[in-house]
Amino acid sequence: MNYKLVFRLLGRLLLTEAGLMLPSLGVSLIFRQGDTPAFLEAVLITGAVGALLSFLLKPERDDLTARDGMAVAGLSWVTLSFFGALPFVFSGAIPHVVDAYFEAVSGFTTTGSTILTEIEHLPKGVLFWRSFTHWIGGMGVLVFTLAVLPRLSGRTSHLARAESPGPTFSKLLPKMGDTAKILYLLYFALSMAETVCLLFAGMNVYDALIHTFGTAGTGGFSNYNASVGAFHNPLIEWIIGVFMMLFGVNFAVYFHLMRREKEPILQSEELWTYLSIVAAATLLITLNILPRYGGFLEALRIAFFQVTSIVSTTGFGTADFDLWPLFSRTLLLLLMCMGACAGSTAGGFKTSRVLLLGKSAYRDLEHTLQPRKVAVVRLEGKTVQESTLSQVGVYLALWVVLAVVGTLLISLEAADFVTAFTAVLTTLSNVGPGLSGVGPTSNFAFFSPPAKLLLSFMMLAGRLEIYPVLLLFSPNVWRKN
Amino acid sequence: MNYKLVFRLLGRLLLTEAGLMLPSLGVSLIFRQGDTPAFLEAVLITGAVGALLSFLLKPERDDLTARDGMAVAGLSWVTLSFFGALPFVFSGAIPHVVDAYFEAVSGFTTTGSTILTEIEHLPKGVLFWRSFTHWIGGMGVLVFTLAVLPRLSGRTSHLARAESPGPTFSKLLPKMGDTAKILYLLYFALSMAETVCLLFAGMNVYDALIHTFGTAGTGGFSNYNASVGAFHNPLIEWIIGVFMMLFGVNFAVYFHLMRREKEPILQSEELWTYLSIVAAATLLITLNILPRYGGFLEALRIAFFQVTSIVSTTGFGTADFDLWPLFSRTLLLLLMCMGACAGSTAGGFKTSRVLLLGKSAYRDLEHTLQPRKVAVVRLEGKTVQESTLSQVGVYLALWVVLAVVGTLLISLEAADFVTAFTAVLTTLSNVGPGLSGVGPTSNFAFFSPPAKLLLSFMMLAGRLEIYPVLLLFSPNVWRKN
Repeated sequence: MNYKLVFRLLGRLLLTEAGLMLPSLGVSLIFRQGDTPAFLEAVLITGAVGALLSFLLKPERDDLTARDGMAVAGLSWVTLSFFGALPFVFSGAIPHVVDAYFEAVSGFTTTGSTILTEIEHLPKGVLFWRSFTHWIGGMGVLVFTLAVLPRLSGRTSHLARAESPGPTFSKLLPKMGDTAKILYLLYFALSMAETVCLLFAGMNVYDALIHTFGTAGTGGFSNYNASVGAFHNPLIEWIIGVFMMLFGVNFAVYFHLMRREKEPILQSEELWTYLSIVAAATLLITLNILPRYGGFLEALRIAFFQVTSIVSTTGFGTADFDLWPLFSRTLLLLLMCMGACAGSTAGGFKTSRVLLLGKSAYRDLEHTLQPRKVAVVRLEGKTVQESTLSQVGVYLALWVVLAVVGTLLISLEAADFVTAFTAVLTTLSNVGPGLSGVGPTSNFAFFSPPAKLLLSFMMLAGRLEIYPVLLLFSPNVWRKN
Repeated sequence: MNYKLVFRLLGRLLLTEAGLMLPSLGVSLIFRQGDTPAFLEAVLITGAVGALLSFLLKPERDDLTARDGMAVAGLSWVTLSFFGALPFVFSGAIPHVVDAYFEAVSGFTTTGSTILTEIEHLPKGVLFWRSFTHWIGGMGVLVFTLAVLPRLSGRTSHLARAESPGPTFSKLLPKMGDTAKILYLLYFALSMAETVCLLFAGMNVYDALIHTFGTAGTGGFSNYNASVGAFHNPLIEWIIGVFMMLFGVNFAVYFHLMRREKEPILQSEELWTYLSIVAAATLLITLNILPRYGGFLEALRIAFFQVTSIVSTTGFGTADFDLWPLFSRTLLLLLMCMGACAGSTAGGFKTSRVLLLGKSAYRDLEHTLQPRKVAVVRLEGKTVQESTLSQVGVYLALWVVLAVVGTLLISLEAADFVTAFTAVLTTLSNVGPGLSGVGPTSNFAFFSPPAKLLLSFMMLAGRLEIYPVLLLFSPNVWRKN
């Protein structure tokens, strides 16, 4: 590892983070609930460490190897979360360091699992920061660092490779920096649109921002114990439901929309598969929960909200789906694992990977019937390389291994299998709530500190698509070059 | 499909099945519990249909295409189970056809899941046949049909490919027919050894045979409600435990042992991984359940028995592991999914596939660090082709999809998630018992007929490694050629 370069990059990231804490400092000044000093201290410490690292370190070489890129990706999220936890600790909102770290990781990885049992009494500045980490994490360090790094080195593609939330992020523009700016703009525009809609629906500015952050990052932190259900407002539920669905769409689609290019959108197999899954799941759950609600439209609204919330890996709630029939719960669990489209802010395994594996399976079945026929797998009109297919298989294997080993370890202290299993699945997929002991009305407070760290690891692994996080455990990465 | 040839082969299979019913007819004559007419009828019907198909059909061409091979494999198990269910129905032991079919499929696929709530009052001839289907199914239609088919056509390798229980079955001898005979001999010898040991430990001949059939086929049907626990005999538990472990080993190992070839055994990564997993799991569970039993040795015996029973996908029981701590239950669930070695009578995903995916993952991680280095995956000293690796990934995907879709459908009627999930996993892995509602002291009687057919499908898919069973749903396979 090129230590000096890697740590200088981390330093710049911390400087940016200190800057990103300022809006929360502002909020704390407006509401005056005693959390201002915590933000001042956090900004100073984060900024000071950032400044030290970025100005004192003088790397001999300015190029980033693949290894360094992976290390930066993994370390960025670990470091961001560590310093991001400071306001929680300093304000006394979350006194225990492990708890605060869990909450910050859950924020930056846009998971939304919480260790807080009671949210509403916390200072508004702290809650703002908690949700703002979703918005920062949302588009990932992908866009975040692409706005900082291109000036430093020409070789940023390794970073993009590590942090892009899917197997392929269409190269929209020749230059990485331009792509990043476009993505950032789209992200900002969509967020603005949601905030305006929520204000229109009757939310106050603070609540509208908090819930936009949670939606845009597909995170799911709310400032109410009852989550979105607290508003008792069908219009708000429809708005957030639709935006959760939209933030689960590959951002390349919006880019094409912006350019008024119809073809790539109509041909996007991932998009149409995703939308079909949302529609089918909504319909099935509506029918399944119909007897419990006051009519088809109410059941439809609640089902649509929960489906988009889970498939986009957001995790907002308007109903306690842990009380729903087993079929609906199981279906939500599947959506939880799948997640939405690659190139969106969603977590999970991603629709495009499911598509690729489905197509490979079909190809292999056909091959069994006609061994002499050579067939390739095509996605979105392009031939998929065999190595990509085998990588997707390996990714599935790693995913399964993490889920399995995680469940086994958590089962040492969880009360029942469903709690252990869904706690791991929901963190690995960056969703938020699970079932049973970690259901929508429960939280993660009861886990022991080691279990909380393990689940934090799952969130990081899920968000960074496993590799950069696993590689942090390889001595090779830490060897000086 | 070459209909005439395929159905002639199925006819020969039925003739053989009629012959294989004769020992059970003999048992029914010895114990005279009223089940003799049922066997007479079953033998006559099975034999008559078999004779009609094999002597009336005159295929124009004698060669088996890949498609036909797959069809024969899939149809063999469906047909064998259908006629194998006749004694259950005719004797009145299992009056409902769907129940009887479920039980027969569970027998031939060596699963051991049962719809019977009370076993001990059934006629001894019927119970003998029920367990004998395990023994027949054990080595699979692989050896079973390889003894019949080589005289018919030179192209039997498609069949072997479809039914071999793992990704690679070492070609022991140049000719398929010779390999089959050797495997048959080894299977017979190991079964004899177990029977002798069980007689020595105090079992009567009938019980010894029943439990040998269940062990050899890694099936798990017992003639006692309390399974192997009914004997209250530690020696018997150790003997069956060891033999369950042995029947989970790739039979190529025994062939090399017979030839006194040390090298291939010492180098067999799969064997040593499998044995290490058994040892580690036994130790972990022993420690986990220690407080519940009378001492280390007792806990060790019970843990070893349950680990070998589950990992070999047999499913015998000496304890109600559904009452064990969550960690032990979760660990057993993992072993259930993994299964034992390829080339054994065990079901599940297979240790060799786990090894291959693990090595691919490691290779991909290394590749991320050093993109220019070309690395191959090696297993047992041989380079593994990339297409094999991608096929293993696809196989995992198909496995996950079956498990997921199965759980979703079963969740429409199961009481809880663990029941639905483990009912599907245990049938797909051909184990037998699951957890909660389908735990070791429960059974599958409460499921509706459609659910029983779905779980029968899972057993067939698991036993035939998915492809031949899925292909039966492809119109291509049924097209005349």
